[in-house]
Amino acid sequence: MDRFDSISPLDYRYYTGNKELHDQINEFLSEKAAIRYLLLAEEKLAEALCERGVCSRETYAEISGVCKQVTAQEVYEEEARIRHDIRALVNCIRRKVSEKAKPYVHLTATSSDITCTADAARMKDAAEKLLIPQLLQLEKTLIEIARREKESLQIGRTHGQHAEPITFGYAMCEYVSRLGNRILALKKAAANLRGKMSGAVGNYNASMLFFQEPEEFEKEVLAKLGLTAATHSTQIVEPEYAADYMHAAVSAFGVLANLADDMRHLQRTEIAEIAEEFGSEQVGSSTMPHKRNPVNFENVKSMWKAFMPRMTTLYMDQISEHQRDLTNSASTRFSTEIIAALALSANRMDRIMKKLAVNRQKMKAHLQESRQSIAAEPAYILLAALGHPDAHEYVRRLTLKVQKDSKSFSDLLMQDKEARPYLEKMTEEQLGIIRNPENYTGIAARKTEAVCKHWEDELWSTG
Amino acid sequence: MDRFDSISPLDYRYYTGNKELHDQINEFLSEKAAIRYLLLAEEKLAEALCERGVCSRETYAEISGVCKQVTAQEVYEEEARIRHDIRALVNCIRRKVSEKAKPYVHLTATSSDITCTADAARMKDAAEKLLIPQLLQLEKTLIEIARREKESLQIGRTHGQHAEPITFGYAMCEYVSRLGNRILALKKAAANLRGKMSGAVGNYNASMLFFQEPEEFEKEVLAKLGLTAATHSTQIVEPEYAADYMHAAVSAFGVLANLADDMRHLQRTEIAEIAEEFGSEQVGSSTMPHKRNPVNFENVKSMWKAFMPRMTTLYMDQISEHQRDLTNSASTRFSTEIIAALALSANRMDRIMKKLAVNRQKMKAHLQESRQSIAAEPAYILLAALGHPDAHEYVRRLTLKVQKDSKSFSDLLMQDKEARPYLEKMTEEQLGIIRNPENYTGIAARKTEAVCKHWEDELWSTG
Amino acid sequence: MDRFDSISPLDYRYYTGNKELHDQINEFLSEKAAIRYLLLAEEKLAEALCERGVCSRETYAEISGVCKQVTAQEVYEEEARIRHDIRALVNCIRRKVSEKAKPYVHLTATSSDITCTADAARMKDAAEKLLIPQLLQLEKTLIEIARREKESLQIGRTHGQHAEPITFGYAMCEYVSRLGNRILALKKAAANLRGKMSGAVGNYNASMLFFQEPEEFEKEVLAKLGLTAATHSTQIVEPEYAADYMHAAVSAFGVLANLADDMRHLQRTEIAEIAEEFGSEQVGSSTMPHKRNPVNFENVKSMWKAFMPRMTTLYMDQISEHQRDLTNSASTRFSTEIIAALALSANRMDRIMKKLAVNRQKMKAHLQESRQSIAAEPAYILLAALGHPDAHEYVRRLTLKVQKDSKSFSDLLMQDKEARPYLEKMTEEQLGIIRNPENYTGIAARKTEAVCKHWEDELWSTG
Amino acid sequence: MDRFDSISPLDYRYYTGNKELHDQINEFLSEKAAIRYLLLAEEKLAEALCERGVCSRETYAEISGVCKQVTAQEVYEEEARIRHDIRALVNCIRRKVSEKAKPYVHLTATSSDITCTADAARMKDAAEKLLIPQLLQLEKTLIEIARREKESLQIGRTHGQHAEPITFGYAMCEYVSRLGNRILALKKAAANLRGKMSGAVGNYNASMLFFQEPEEFEKEVLAKLGLTAATHSTQIVEPEYAADYMHAAVSAFGVLANLADDMRHLQRTEIAEIAEEFGSEQVGSSTMPHKRNPVNFENVKSMWKAFMPRMTTLYMDQISEHQRDLTNSASTRFSTEIIAALALSANRMDRIMKKLAVNRQKMKAHLQESRQSIAAEPAYILLAALGHPDAHEYVRRLTLKVQKDSKSFSDLLMQDKEARPYLEKMTEEQLGIIRNPENYTGIAARKTEAVCKHWEDELWSTG
Repeated sequence: MDRFDSISPLDYRYYTGNKELHDQINEFLSEKAAIRYLLLAEEKLAEALCERGVCSRETYAEISGVCKQVTAQEVYEEEARIRHDIRALVNCIRRKVSEKAKPYVHLTATSSDITCTADAARMKDAAEKLLIPQLLQLEKTLIEIARREKESLQIGRTHGQHAEPITFGYAMCEYVSRLGNRILALKKAAANLRGKMSGAVGNYNASMLFFQEPEEFEKEVLAKLGLTAATHSTQIVEPEYAADYMHAAVSAFGVLANLADDMRHLQRTEIAEIAEEFGSEQVGSSTMPHKRNPVNFENVKSMWKAFMPRMTTLYMDQISEHQRDLTNSASTRFSTEIIAALALSANRMDRIMKKLAVNRQKMKAHLQESRQSIAAEPAYILLAALGHPDAHEYVRRLTLKVQKDSKSFSDLLMQDKEARPYLEKMTEEQLGIIRNPENYTGIAARKTEAVCKHWEDELWSTG
Repeated sequence: MDRFDSISPLDYRYYTGNKELHDQINEFLSEKAAIRYLLLAEEKLAEALCERGVCSRETYAEISGVCKQVTAQEVYEEEARIRHDIRALVNCIRRKVSEKAKPYVHLTATSSDITCTADAARMKDAAEKLLIPQLLQLEKTLIEIARREKESLQIGRTHGQHAEPITFGYAMCEYVSRLGNRILALKKAAANLRGKMSGAVGNYNASMLFFQEPEEFEKEVLAKLGLTAATHSTQIVEPEYAADYMHAAVSAFGVLANLADDMRHLQRTEIAEIAEEFGSEQVGSSTMPHKRNPVNFENVKSMWKAFMPRMTTLYMDQISEHQRDLTNSASTRFSTEIIAALALSANRMDRIMKKLAVNRQKMKAHLQESRQSIAAEPAYILLAALGHPDAHEYVRRLTLKVQKDSKSFSDLLMQDKEARPYLEKMTEEQLGIIRNPENYTGIAARKTEAVCKHWEDELWSTG
Repeated sequence: MDRFDSISPLDYRYYTGNKELHDQINEFLSEKAAIRYLLLAEEKLAEALCERGVCSRETYAEISGVCKQVTAQEVYEEEARIRHDIRALVNCIRRKVSEKAKPYVHLTATSSDITCTADAARMKDAAEKLLIPQLLQLEKTLIEIARREKESLQIGRTHGQHAEPITFGYAMCEYVSRLGNRILALKKAAANLRGKMSGAVGNYNASMLFFQEPEEFEKEVLAKLGLTAATHSTQIVEPEYAADYMHAAVSAFGVLANLADDMRHLQRTEIAEIAEEFGSEQVGSSTMPHKRNPVNFENVKSMWKAFMPRMTTLYMDQISEHQRDLTNSASTRFSTEIIAALALSANRMDRIMKKLAVNRQKMKAHLQESRQSIAAEPAYILLAALGHPDAHEYVRRLTLKVQKDSKSFSDLLMQDKEARPYLEKMTEEQLGIIRNPENYTGIAARKTEAVCKHWEDELWSTG
Repeated sequence: MDRFDSISPLDYRYYTGNKELHDQINEFLSEKAAIRYLLLAEEKLAEALCERGVCSRETYAEISGVCKQVTAQEVYEEEARIRHDIRALVNCIRRKVSEKAKPYVHLTATSSDITCTADAARMKDAAEKLLIPQLLQLEKTLIEIARREKESLQIGRTHGQHAEPITFGYAMCEYVSRLGNRILALKKAAANLRGKMSGAVGNYNASMLFFQEPEEFEKEVLAKLGLTAATHSTQIVEPEYAADYMHAAVSAFGVLANLADDMRHLQRTEIAEIAEEFGSEQVGSSTMPHKRNPVNFENVKSMWKAFMPRMTTLYMDQISEHQRDLTNSASTRFSTEIIAALALSANRMDRIMKKLAVNRQKMKAHLQESRQSIAAEPAYILLAALGHPDAHEYVRRLTLKVQKDSKSFSDLLMQDKEARPYLEKMTEEQLGIIRNPENYTGIAARKTEAVCKHWEDELWSTG
């Protein structure tokens, strides 16, 4: 098979530039990884059987050894023959162990005990060892930018319109906070994934043949994989654990998409407050050689559009008739793609943000352009606080005047009779803000620092 | 306005039969409720200003009184004039207070401080006082059924095929567990909704004019509404808190939909193990007077189909440009409909489940019909455990024989030479299960009790 | 019931400002309208029975008269008693006709014959008499703007970056074309909605008792409502007709959302090429009295976010077990909301676009700012066409120089040795474009005219 | 690369069993195919340039030859260097042609001219040569079953309850009709996909440098690929053509999912009217060797759950800022997966339906079980038609009696005084249906034939 014979962009296009990342993704999200975790579940089951004295140490050692050797290729070939994936896997193991060990392979388990458990272990590892590290790397980069730019004046924008001043660091701090929050959500949801060893319809029919307390045996097997059992299971684990996990992932993707959108817009020709780094050999356009396009930010937004809707599949997969209907079998296989796409996008975002060009002059210039109208908010609030009975309406009318006359808002206000009694009551500091509204940045810098600190403590503290 | 002039089925059709429920829903989810919470936020803001000494006790008392009087009608009339919803609300309050009090209405706040905070308080209350009580009522009913039926034999079904025996109580216990889990998720998500008093672009520009520690002031206002502040905010609260809340609601809806589907299928003419209660005057069909249809279960499934996809709106609303773009304004208004629909469906489900007709004879009869093939699983597992090197394949072949010959699986097995050495090693209990596979119910009854107890402790324990 | 007791924003908020629009929406999309169409279907059924001689003229006249009188209120009261919506409707009619006429009410029909047929007739009318007229009004407005601005120079933007020149009329022409295309799609899909009179399971069991060719009878009833029959039906009409209709509506909504986004961005403070009209009493912000926000464009985008995801419900409603499972009953009731929301958004968009402020100076100014880099495309293409072996790379390098040196691209090119042999081969016209790239607008004006003409012919031509 | 290193189930799992199908899918949907179509678009562009006399025959011949040689591998390597996909493709072609030919490669085109056009041609071919043939094959199979089983009595089911009699052929005929309708929709939508050669912002800036009527030139290029031009384009083709195409595909998928669900339910142990064929070596369950599960029907339903939600991506991709924002670039790449999944599911469904085991005895037996209640509908209708003033209510009460007494509905009716006057007016045929309601199948057989004929004519007629 040639990579370009693939159908999925995940296989032919997106996870290749970076060998290390490619290998990490493959370690958890390829079909080889899936089969490896299934074998691991069979191995741990055998270990637990051995510890309970159902099979001997030798038998366990045999099974364990074989579980490390069986390949995806073999399993698929056997499945082509008997058309059952887990039975195929079991046959592959059995074929390689002694007659004496054969009966203990898969003993007490139903297929779904193995698939549900292996999938939970794999998705937990994928979060903890692949996805969360990628997101933490991005979080770290965002914290650095937020701190570095915490004093960089920028005009805040609401409705796409200049509003009141912030700092660029404070704007980035939004993403520090939201991404931090999602990483935490992912950690919790990943740690809460569950396995099962409760048999074909969930009430331990088979394991009850061997153990008085089959739930204890289930716990022992799962503990070897770092998992706990669902409170209840049918043939499968309750689907809400996986739905929570994917919700955490999909909503984390939304944070990345929002950041990408903000960056795209700040890179607009007319705004140009930031820019995506551009390679010296990189081509902007096939016909417009001068273009410098935010192609990576566009990619992240686009991936979100491709993957966010798939959450609907998870919600549909909550529904399974009676003790299970299996119409969630194929669809579940595709849900791991969401994790791959998110890990890729986090990695891409980190690379781009690390090299982000920030144009502080441009930021300051935009703030200057709006400095007159900025003053309207503190003016209205101070007038009101100092007793003007209709300050909002008064200031609103004054701003209409600014547009007609060529005067500045501050000048108009300072010279207006109606304002005088209130202006006289203002402190120097308050007047200063009206005259120099670029100082009207609230607690942007201080709060940036506090938010960054908060998330560092939450995300990297031990325990 | 006449109810049948409404466009939305929520307004003309679904929440009307039950006056008490109708009133409860209206108390949190109607537009009157929305306006009442906005006024409450303005009132609490005034109270906090008063406690900080910014305005007098009298002024606060005046504002507080007026906030209890302003009506939705008034606010909408003012909005028609000035085309801004929160300013309209503020104008309505200001109009009714003295000149002295006017300046202190809404002081330091931007519109979104009020809407975000009021919405969070309202959605929190809607969960805690409307939705969760409805879900808990259903949970209680499910627990009762699970306990009552914990010994009622039923054949477990996977792939729609008879699998291994369970009890009907154990089947219901699945929903006790999954719904319990979702109620817990909703509780957490509702308690985690956040408000804000951080001004137009989130960095406390306005409140900083009055307070050295504007975050402390924010805390004081929010505490009066039972809320805490978001770690960071722009013009609006970080959208992930609301997304988590709606995910909890939508995934709870999925549990109800699954239960509805199971009930529909168990009510199929050929299965008929349960039935929805039918009123003596109720008409089954306009042309088929004999029909007894599961119309309520169908309704719950159908509502899920109408509302589950709306989660996608929440995910899209995560994206808001810069310090906010307002394209989440109208869409957010619709998201409360999800809570109304879920509360209605929970209430309907509870009513139906309470009167569920359970046909234990039919359940037992189905189990009997499959008793021969049921024995295949324990037979294979015991043969394997007792050393048969290829028990699965051996039993698989034997089951093919059952279909050809007219003999039972037990008889075939008991008479088969190949099986003899293993049968001889079986205990009486093990042989008993193969002969009477209806006893092969694992720990269904015991586990039902344990799961019910677990969720009672989780959901109703104090603290 | 008070309007503010409503749960749905469609009922309490959005369709009220405009009395005429409100009435139009209500005429097709309120519950009163739904009941009126059900009665109409019963009336037409009676008429067809009469024409076939099954009942007398007097009987038909009686039924017809009563069908015009029965109210939604009555039907709902009867339904509360017998819990079946169509049987309730039938009872209400029967109660008011003579004993002689009673048997002929609903004769041969099953409930779904009436609901499917009435819904198809209603949705067809809603498209043809409400939605399409609103969209056509907007289309007309867009055509006017496109024509008026067909020569207004604007810089085209790709990736949010200045690309090559267009005209603003040409930009608007995109929406003339896409909206025209969607109106056509809606027309076709609405005209293709189907009814049925094929009985409880679709094979005319009941009507076969009366007519040798029951399909002919079905045709006669449906023709009276302007409908044709589905090729096949079960208890219900094949769901794909409704899915096509909603796809046309939802994709039309996407066109409006895209237009809204473009307008929002062109109104950004830094771009300001267009602006939403602002009332003299209108308030921009509760704390920033100077703000002029694109609130209507934001509303349209937001409504799209609220309604687009509901298409998923239609796709899920394609699935109905056997001859019908009724889990599409409630969900279908909500799908009419999509039409209401789209009609409202089209109307809003039309109002805003009619008063759109276009700043041609600003547009020209932006073009001027990028005039140097614009020349890169024609330069590269002409150099290539004139034989430069590596024109794209050559021009790409030259543009990098522009950024370093303070010279213009034209100057650099004109003075560069490598370019000389090709420049010498250029016509005066070609050189003119490189020197004055603002003339590089292709066939924008001419094509604008052609596209407008095309859609006028398609959409307003008779027949 | 090893197949099991893939992330996507489409690449490692689902399209492999059938070599012929695998190759067909690859021919249109692999990345190699994508690159081949891009090269084809470049080739056709060169051909048109040659016909217009812009370049020589030799030059065209050279470019054409090279376009058949360039490999995906080469293009990706070049892209890794310059980070622009189409420029990389162009470079690969240019590198292999003479200096003289170099300038004519890609001349007048922008990247999107090539990608939009190549994608349209490819998706059109994928529909016409891959997907529609697969669906037609299934349609043919369904027609065969419908005709073969047109007289096989079956009880119709609504709400999962026995309703009135149909035939199994008539039930299958539903899918003949719905699938036929979707194939037609796909044909139309595929034939309506559009290309473009209108340059970087859609107004033919570049081609206008060469041709007075650049739209004519565009037509010439597209005609060579079997395409027509969009009425209007920006940098890209209007997105609604692709949305219509995917809607046709996704709604066709819904038809397959519904068929799969019906089959799954008819295969339930208690119903068992049909069964999925089972291989002699096939394993039903890893622990329950006796299970015969509808795994293929489950797979089709599951694939629908995985792919249907992706339509939301298409709707989001309708929105692109100004002359294009490129956030649809990655997401569009994934939309071809929908076509692959649908083709696979159609193929799978065809294979299974071809070997479907139909148990006519079981079908007849179910009908017999409900024969008494079936008579209620014709009885009510005939009584009404013969003048009973309240036939529905009368029959409803009688059916309640049936359940209490152990008598049959027919007997009760025949013996009831109230019914006598009407029964006396009935024809022998009408009485016959009440006595033998299994004959109450309407026009099922006749209509089956007519519907099959209709779709054969529509789908296979020449022209």
